[in-house]
Amino acid sequence: MNFYVMTLFPAMVAEGLNTSIIGRAVEKGLLSITAVDIRDFSEDKHKRVDDYPYGGGAGMVMAPGPVVRACEHVKGLIPAERRERTRVIYLTPQGKVFNQKKAEEWAKEEDLIFLCGHYEGIDERALELVVTETASAGDYVLTGGELPAMLMIDAVSRLIPGVLNNEVSAEFESFQDNLLEYPQYTRPEDYNGHRVPEVLLSGHHANIERWRREQSIRRTLKMRPDLLAHAALSEKERQFLQTLLQRETEP
Amino acid sequence: MNFYVMTLFPAMVAEGLNTSIIGRAVEKGLLSITAVDIRDFSEDKHKRVDDYPYGGGAGMVMAPGPVVRACEHVKGLIPAERRERTRVIYLTPQGKVFNQKKAEEWAKEEDLIFLCGHYEGIDERALELVVTETASAGDYVLTGGELPAMLMIDAVSRLIPGVLNNEVSAEFESFQDNLLEYPQYTRPEDYNGHRVPEVLLSGHHANIERWRREQSIRRTLKMRPDLLAHAALSEKERQFLQTLLQRETEP
Repeated sequence: MNFYVMTLFPAMVAEGLNTSIIGRAVEKGLLSITAVDIRDFSEDKHKRVDDYPYGGGAGMVMAPGPVVRACEHVKGLIPAERRERTRVIYLTPQGKVFNQKKAEEWAKEEDLIFLCGHYEGIDERALELVVTETASAGDYVLTGGELPAMLMIDAVSRLIPGVLNNEVSAEFESFQDNLLEYPQYTRPEDYNGHRVPEVLLSGHHANIERWRREQSIRRTLKMRPDLLAHAALSEKERQFLQTLLQRETEP
Repeated sequence: MNFYVMTLFPAMVAEGLNTSIIGRAVEKGLLSITAVDIRDFSEDKHKRVDDYPYGGGAGMVMAPGPVVRACEHVKGLIPAERRERTRVIYLTPQGKVFNQKKAEEWAKEEDLIFLCGHYEGIDERALELVVTETASAGDYVLTGGELPAMLMIDAVSRLIPGVLNNEVSAEFESFQDNLLEYPQYTRPEDYNGHRVPEVLLSGHHANIERWRREQSIRRTLKMRPDLLAHAALSEKERQFLQTLLQRETEP
């Protein structure tokens, strides 16, 4: 998978994705991350990329030329047979909210191009010419598209075979059941008087598994009850959930 | 505002927030960002911070000691009178989903502490001892809490007086009306045959304002109809929206 990020802050993108997992995947050749500086495509002698908005208003707007040329440059890096169908994703709080399902969809691609806006946004004509879809990390306003792009690259990278070792990716499956994760404990057994739950020390695998599932159901009910409607529960687990719900409604 | 980030990747946090706006705010002394390396608080001679989970299962769990000691260290950096009421926010996909309202709430604080997990998460006892609330950037799984922490710091920083100049912050207000932004245009007037809409060149401010509001309403209807229920519309704008809705339902 090749990620391309068009940005005014290429160093931020390069450094900010330098964690162990993503870094190792880059070293292994499982993915590449190329940050392209939109400023390099300015034809202005001061390398300006922004200008005043037509019709007035606050702030500056990124001019169409540098954005379109940066995108042409990136497309030139992609083999001709894949070039035309490559997604160009514009990060904007106005975009479709990104989620795990979108990450799965994008993980099937060979190339993804992200376009990060700054200032008051990008000239609409440039967006119409290059962008194929929009995405937002969530309902909040940020100073630019870089952090959302990095976050989406991280989420998509985890899904590329070989990036996570098998055991860790198995963990992810449990999230897909629409249940939150159970609490985790490691050594010491007694941390300043706070002990690990006895069942986890019992070595009784069926009991441990049941305790963990019940903890997941309790947490999901408490933190994200919206997920429970789609949770994959066994008949026994449904009964357990019913008991929790009854207890809640009792005086 | 002082942000503290407890992490295994302090360089990532430091570099990844180095954009013009945040960087300038740090220089001006409007905010500080301190990344604290949890590994520095390991008492293991190899500086290990993770260990196998009790009860078995995939992956490694961050041990309670380094996390609790890192948090004690950070609290020691905060003046005693504010120390106890400082929020300690654990970034987890299981947390409450972050949004603009939460950013506004947090922007009133003087100090915020973020705790970033990695591997299979953090020993539950450490979380019980130090965390006051949880937060998630959205419904997706990431390799760690760093990118969500950075994103939240960015969203909160924008709201601190003086970080944005007044004109830019005015733009943000328009998002608060629960309408998406209107399209923006800058020079050239004609970009390879793609022209700026005539109304924006007219100099007629009332027409420009009406065109922009109508564009915002159109976009919100197309991209995020869920927002319209809470949008602040004038009587005329409600009629305009009705016309759009009728046009949609016509054959």
